[in-house]
Amino acid sequence: MAAEALRLAAAVLLLLCGTLSFPLGPETNPATTCGYESCHATKANMLNVHLVPHTHDDVGWLKTVDQYYYGDRNDIQHAGVQYILDSVVDQLLKNPDRRFIYVETAFFYRWWKRQSPSMQQTVRQLVDEGRLEFVNGGWCMSDEATTHYSAVIDQMTMGLRFLNETFGACGRPRVAWHIDPFGHAREHASMFAQMGYDGFFFGRLDYQDRTHRMVQLEQELLWRASDSLPPPTADLFTGILPNGYNPPEGFCWDQSCDDPPIRDDPDLEDYNVNDVVSRFLGIAKAQATVYKTNHIIMTMGSDFQYENANLWYKNLDKLILYVNALQANGSKVNVLYSTPSCYLQELHRANLTWALKTDDFFPYADSDHDFWTGYFTSRPALKRYERISNSNLQTCNQLEVLAGPASRTGPFGEGESQTMKKAMAVAQHHDAVSGTEKQHVANDYARRLANGWQRCQVLVSNSLAALSASSAKRIYCDNLNISVCPLTESSRKFAVTVYNPLARPVSWAVRLPVNGSAYAVSDAKGAAVDCQVVPVSAATRGVRRNRGFAVNELVFQVQAPPLGYSTYSVSLLQNGPPPASMKPRHPAAIQNEYLRVTFDPDTGLLSSLANLETKQSIKLTQNFYWYNASDGNNTESNQPSGAYIFRPNSSTPFIISQTAKTETVQTSVVQEVRQWFSPWVSQVVRLYAGSRALELEWTVGPLPIDDSLGKEVITRLDTSIQTAEVFYTDSNGREVLRRKKDFRPTWTLKQSEPIAGNYYPINSRAFIKDDADQLTVVTDRSQGGGSIHNGSLEIMLHRRLLYDDVRGVAEPLNETSHIFPDGLVVRGRLLLSLERPPVAADTHRLIAQEMVLQPLLTFTDGDLNPNTRLEFSGLQAALPPAVHLLTLTQWDQDLVLLRLEHQFQSWESKVSSQPVTVSLQKLFSTMEVVGVSEMNLSANQWKDEMRRFAWAPQTDETPVLKTFQDISPWEVTLRPMEIRTFLLRVVLR
Amino acid sequence: MAAEALRLAAAVLLLLCGTLSFPLGPETNPATTCGYESCHATKANMLNVHLVPHTHDDVGWLKTVDQYYYGDRNDIQHAGVQYILDSVVDQLLKNPDRRFIYVETAFFYRWWKRQSPSMQQTVRQLVDEGRLEFVNGGWCMSDEATTHYSAVIDQMTMGLRFLNETFGACGRPRVAWHIDPFGHAREHASMFAQMGYDGFFFGRLDYQDRTHRMVQLEQELLWRASDSLPPPTADLFTGILPNGYNPPEGFCWDQSCDDPPIRDDPDLEDYNVNDVVSRFLGIAKAQATVYKTNHIIMTMGSDFQYENANLWYKNLDKLILYVNALQANGSKVNVLYSTPSCYLQELHRANLTWALKTDDFFPYADSDHDFWTGYFTSRPALKRYERISNSNLQTCNQLEVLAGPASRTGPFGEGESQTMKKAMAVAQHHDAVSGTEKQHVANDYARRLANGWQRCQVLVSNSLAALSASSAKRIYCDNLNISVCPLTESSRKFAVTVYNPLARPVSWAVRLPVNGSAYAVSDAKGAAVDCQVVPVSAATRGVRRNRGFAVNELVFQVQAPPLGYSTYSVSLLQNGPPPASMKPRHPAAIQNEYLRVTFDPDTGLLSSLANLETKQSIKLTQNFYWYNASDGNNTESNQPSGAYIFRPNSSTPFIISQTAKTETVQTSVVQEVRQWFSPWVSQVVRLYAGSRALELEWTVGPLPIDDSLGKEVITRLDTSIQTAEVFYTDSNGREVLRRKKDFRPTWTLKQSEPIAGNYYPINSRAFIKDDADQLTVVTDRSQGGGSIHNGSLEIMLHRRLLYDDVRGVAEPLNETSHIFPDGLVVRGRLLLSLERPPVAADTHRLIAQEMVLQPLLTFTDGDLNPNTRLEFSGLQAALPPAVHLLTLTQWDQDLVLLRLEHQFQSWESKVSSQPVTVSLQKLFSTMEVVGVSEMNLSANQWKDEMRRFAWAPQTDETPVLKTFQDISPWEVTLRPMEIRTFLLRVVLR
Repeated sequence: MAAEALRLAAAVLLLLCGTLSFPLGPETNPATTCGYESCHATKANMLNVHLVPHTHDDVGWLKTVDQYYYGDRNDIQHAGVQYILDSVVDQLLKNPDRRFIYVETAFFYRWWKRQSPSMQQTVRQLVDEGRLEFVNGGWCMSDEATTHYSAVIDQMTMGLRFLNETFGACGRPRVAWHIDPFGHAREHASMFAQMGYDGFFFGRLDYQDRTHRMVQLEQELLWRASDSLPPPTADLFTGILPNGYNPPEGFCWDQSCDDPPIRDDPDLEDYNVNDVVSRFLGIAKAQATVYKTNHIIMTMGSDFQYENANLWYKNLDKLILYVNALQANGSKVNVLYSTPSCYLQELHRANLTWALKTDDFFPYADSDHDFWTGYFTSRPALKRYERISNSNLQTCNQLEVLAGPASRTGPFGEGESQTMKKAMAVAQHHDAVSGTEKQHVANDYARRLANGWQRCQVLVSNSLAALSASSAKRIYCDNLNISVCPLTESSRKFAVTVYNPLARPVSWAVRLPVNGSAYAVSDAKGAAVDCQVVPVSAATRGVRRNRGFAVNELVFQVQAPPLGYSTYSVSLLQNGPPPASMKPRHPAAIQNEYLRVTFDPDTGLLSSLANLETKQSIKLTQNFYWYNASDGNNTESNQPSGAYIFRPNSSTPFIISQTAKTETVQTSVVQEVRQWFSPWVSQVVRLYAGSRALELEWTVGPLPIDDSLGKEVITRLDTSIQTAEVFYTDSNGREVLRRKKDFRPTWTLKQSEPIAGNYYPINSRAFIKDDADQLTVVTDRSQGGGSIHNGSLEIMLHRRLLYDDVRGVAEPLNETSHIFPDGLVVRGRLLLSLERPPVAADTHRLIAQEMVLQPLLTFTDGDLNPNTRLEFSGLQAALPPAVHLLTLTQWDQDLVLLRLEHQFQSWESKVSSQPVTVSLQKLFSTMEVVGVSEMNLSANQWKDEMRRFAWAPQTDETPVLKTFQDISPWEVTLRPMEIRTFLLRVVLR
Repeated sequence: MAAEALRLAAAVLLLLCGTLSFPLGPETNPATTCGYESCHATKANMLNVHLVPHTHDDVGWLKTVDQYYYGDRNDIQHAGVQYILDSVVDQLLKNPDRRFIYVETAFFYRWWKRQSPSMQQTVRQLVDEGRLEFVNGGWCMSDEATTHYSAVIDQMTMGLRFLNETFGACGRPRVAWHIDPFGHAREHASMFAQMGYDGFFFGRLDYQDRTHRMVQLEQELLWRASDSLPPPTADLFTGILPNGYNPPEGFCWDQSCDDPPIRDDPDLEDYNVNDVVSRFLGIAKAQATVYKTNHIIMTMGSDFQYENANLWYKNLDKLILYVNALQANGSKVNVLYSTPSCYLQELHRANLTWALKTDDFFPYADSDHDFWTGYFTSRPALKRYERISNSNLQTCNQLEVLAGPASRTGPFGEGESQTMKKAMAVAQHHDAVSGTEKQHVANDYARRLANGWQRCQVLVSNSLAALSASSAKRIYCDNLNISVCPLTESSRKFAVTVYNPLARPVSWAVRLPVNGSAYAVSDAKGAAVDCQVVPVSAATRGVRRNRGFAVNELVFQVQAPPLGYSTYSVSLLQNGPPPASMKPRHPAAIQNEYLRVTFDPDTGLLSSLANLETKQSIKLTQNFYWYNASDGNNTESNQPSGAYIFRPNSSTPFIISQTAKTETVQTSVVQEVRQWFSPWVSQVVRLYAGSRALELEWTVGPLPIDDSLGKEVITRLDTSIQTAEVFYTDSNGREVLRRKKDFRPTWTLKQSEPIAGNYYPINSRAFIKDDADQLTVVTDRSQGGGSIHNGSLEIMLHRRLLYDDVRGVAEPLNETSHIFPDGLVVRGRLLLSLERPPVAADTHRLIAQEMVLQPLLTFTDGDLNPNTRLEFSGLQAALPPAVHLLTLTQWDQDLVLLRLEHQFQSWESKVSSQPVTVSLQKLFSTMEVVGVSEMNLSANQWKDEMRRFAWAPQTDETPVLKTFQDISPWEVTLRPMEIRTFLLRVVLR
């Protein structure tokens, strides 16, 4: 039976029994030998050296992703991925022993779609025979410090899906491969485990850690990557590569290298076979002493190598020939072409136990003054734009599903989410959201996101038109954070539709730039809504740079149903000056029903925070400081601070101002204390009615550099909490890890950078606590931070540097733009919650979730069409707070991908850390679920077909294998930190 | 009938009729379309742009030839020819429209012999289909200024033979291609014409010349390259390439270039097809305005390009696609893959007349202060070593033929001439003997020649053993020029065998380093020979640097028969001090039967030269000077003097000394005046009994650089001859060209370098003359020289420079060695003859011939075996003086290649410039000639099968086509400057 027929048959089956089962990609040729079976034989009584030809193709860095693909701008860096793939395929065909791995699907996809059918068939054959193997296989190799798990899962899903659909089972990567990211997150390991990878390899780790592991033979280990998921769910075998991801010294045969080729023609000068072989044997034997088995791996490749693969393979063929020829004379070294999975298979066969690791690999230092902790904050504007874009994309995805085909073709034209999905996938790259790319490349990432959002806006408009039965033109205001929205600034009557991408109802304060002084607002049911007009702050007026001239903001609370919208109508009542609510003096306090914040009357700074419900209170001072970035000109080391590296000249930051000038706004909807610290640092301390979070909206920049000093600006919260040098940060927005000053859990740290060496990535939150109090700070983007003093938590907000940090980017991180030629201004928000530690997560999980997936506002001008449906929810009912609807996206015509997540760790909350059961059948309001099947996390395998290597840790534990059973395929139970992925067949109602 | 059978049949035929006729290479597949038929169609009504993919692979320059082949030392320059050929073949297979030309057989040969039979078959197919075309095809692309015609013919023959034997007729290049040499010699054009090339292309010519030709549309022209050979024998269509040999600006798609690739995926950023196409059309149209036809050529390649040919071809495919697509919209530009021969064919089809040129393209200047006239002298020691090596190789070749197989296997082991042939062929490269390579590469060329000579010495010893019936050990003394020969220095009795590679008997003065004070010498017939012992000069003692300690030299005249040897026995008579023949005072004169030389008693310098036979006499002062090399630090131009470029800081050279200290030696055999000018310049003025030439043996070096001034040392002859700013130099050792100061025959020169702009290459001789007197200077190597003043001739002897001249070599020309760490010392000889102009050639042709092919001395120690044959000639009789036996070398088992040359120009001599007839059957003494067939000059075509394009010059002349007929195939007539090439089937007697 042909593959197509099989697929149809499966689809029929599904409609009958409700369970999906069909090949996820093309049928694999039954004669293929891909996978572990395709590995070359090794020799049991010898040292087997696995040569792994590979290229590391950054999805943007010094050049944009498309420049890299084409080989454009080779004046910046010689690199052209189209040629790499051309060349590798040609060379693989020349010798069936040769192997190659390819990693970055963003590039492979570009190449594949330009190939002829016959070339595609050739490549399929290579993949089917295991000669070309995909490794990792996401759209990109994501950054681990600054990415949010939801975007990482999306990009991995996109890449792996392409491979699945193009190559079937033989295209499924079996190992994860993060050879370049600058530190490794535990959550990434957890995700990789749940994506079905048998193992994980990386190249960079702390130099002290590496030395320790070499001595202990712990460069290969078992990483237990979750404290909530039962082992081995999040167990990931992890291997540290011997030379980063480069070949051993003297054995780089790429066109970009100068190592001597093998000169084996005895008729020509400089015959060097004996020299090459003896150098190789020396290196192999030395490497074998720091690994456990009689197998070692050598990465034969590097950045953008194999553009002319012949150079590599011709010499590798000879190396293998001449080294193995010595076996006839008793040599016990066997060299072979291999892949990471083939190497992994041999480690697995060794049947050993492996050191267990439960923390992560942050921070990464490659030398004693070279901590890669700057990029946690580098390019804060890009980091925020990426985070907003994720929120917008999830909305776009959801509305594509909820309105069905009407979303893609509708009154506003052809809309689609693919452009945005690809832009977001590319942005996860470890030189994208990380902020470690050149400026023009950063601009390209942002432009791609903007383009993607343009395409999504059409889809969203179409979808809302279908759901609301109104094709009134939808207007988007992407600059509300700086109080710019031409429609609201000028319109006398308009409506704002608030779409809520969360599976539970939210309340949200809307702030709209206006020029009137009084407005009437009514909700979807026609009820009046309390609204207030407050003046736009001076800081905002400074930041807008002629992009808008609203003098006031209209503020009111909205509510939006789960996966749904609610439409509010706004009418101008009165033009004129704003109400005189400004109080230009130091406020004593602001408060709402949950929180009370006091200010020092002398300085204008925060002085305390109290939770009125729990009746707890802490001293809290908050101010802004800057570290003077090292310019590299110092006796201990010549390392400057740069895009990657944070290295302050002194451990004591400069204070920007001891006092703040303040203004106060107090209304029934919001209370604000506006603080000015300098012309380039200001803040609004804001408390909305009904909120459990105190908002600190900071505005920083342009950082002055006329003193020729690079600046790294932090805000520091100094509290009365007794932290004992410990604080907590999240890993990729999910599980929380404990951090202790000048300490690493697995080795005795010799600390050489007291600030930078204590910085950790903060993706979505950090907290400090003692027995009584937990102060959690939720961030609106990834940032770096640390707790250097007792009770203190500092977060780096913005960086402006004058020197490159010599890690390749070759530009100082000195951001300007045509709007900000004098240096970028960045605005962001921190949300503070003060809770009792045992229940703090109940608050911060929800706050953070609302920060990540924020409501989308769309506007329509004038009167609403009377037939317009003003309120809608895509769900039949809200999900419980513990359950997050992580993914809802169209898969193909009838299929929808759904991810549900338990968003609490097992120990976080007595209430929330409990299993929750959700009914899939009764989930959606607009469609019927007629089939369901569970998949692995990356949606490239049926869950029940996922088989992973089992690895034994070096512990005495007797693992208790827990297996859970759902009540039925339709009633699924989520346990703490569990993410479950389903492919649903749906029929629109 | 199979090819092998055909060949055998032909051989049988030959024995019957005496005329050779068989395929010179493998039979060509009758279905092939190589040659002009394989060219792509063009469009008559359009501008046709011929894109010529090519690589320019220097046979040594910054790296050695083997380093270039392998891609070793890529730190110096990224270049690996093995990969170029790998890659080009792969890419040609991908698209049958693609074309490639390959030029340097030294590399192609290295690659070919490492290919599998199936790859060889693939390549044959490409050649048979005209997709891979050989162009030029010599072993290397020879230098034109510093090479001797005999070595050029040899290297071309070697390369073309390989192509013929490997590929048959389809492998025969149809165009000559000298895209890089730094000026172009008329003799090269003449040779190319006689080798059967249909046309010639080059890249470099004087910038003023180019401008003039662009305006006049004379960048394509007909070069009449001989004033003696009847047209069109030496007529060569010559095309000047538009961009040197590079692609037009912005269109370099090699891995070594940074030009933007064609980005034609509309889904990706920076789609640039329109931009590329419009830039290309602009360039093509501009180029068409400076050429005559509706065809233009673009060289799409450069130095060592196409290592990753995919980059080039992928973009060229697209360029052709998109440019030609515009034809549908009316565009009149047609782009196609092409080759120089396909382009040439279109020029030929145009049926136009072309400007006629009869001079040459020296000197070459690429800007007003950038004359490439330094390399005429650069590395004078290497230049001399190359010239001696040629002489030794010809001797080796001759003895291989004369003694037959016994030469290759004999009492001294296995000898062969191939190593030396290859070493000499490589040394003709335009960065080899030219002296423009890096030091380590120059060392490599010398080492190769030394290795070759080692292998030849075995052959020569075997051959002499066979011919002399004595296997006494043969000893070679290669350092006789510095009076070093361990055997003669210590032996009491020895024999010296003098082999004469010329086809006429020669007399020769032998000088042997000895420590005795009296010797007896007897000739082959046992007759006593007049011999004298003279002291070794102080200059020689200084130069030896502990390589020998002889105090005296034994001097005597020897005579050797044509292509034969004569053995002289030497016995020590008396140890002790040398005879007191030294006269440490300024001599008045020295003289022999032909010449009288006087010296100024005040200065010790030469003061006059007289020919006693003709009774002519001239004033002649000779001295040594140095130009201060420009260091590039000057207002007119920052061009320094360097390996390529000669640029003195001032037009007035510094005199080294106004006076010379002198010593005189006067014996019956030789008279010498030894002159010291400084610690680094000395000279011996020497007159042997019976010689028509005055010898000036100069010793120069180490040039002092402690004053931080680069020095370019000349000797200048100032005479009473009225030269009217005219002098004469030879072209590659053959025809002589007239040079006039500050003048170029084909355009009005704007002279900007009064010295360097008047320098010309002197390969073997230069002369000045007036109606009464001609003073000819014969050199022992290639040198640069000029006539800056009336009656004056200067020759540059040695150069030591402190700056690189920015033409790529990236080293100053500052030669040192382990023996001369303080700077190289160079010794050489100039031979002066003074004759009446109408008969001067009768003397200088013979002197120069003896300088080029010098007798080879071999020594045997002790008594001679009584059965030893002491004299031998390979010829039945000497050839007339006008006839030079240019080549006698084994071709294969039964075949011998013979070249006979008329060595006079048509106008040179009433006596000697007459046709001469030679009988081939009665030529050799050791073998019978049983078959003969004439070939073209490069021996890759039967002469009667050679067909060349006919080209019409832009003149009113009605050409008189002269056809000559030999009396019989065995009786061949040579006319002035004619070289005739024969393949002989011989049977050893």
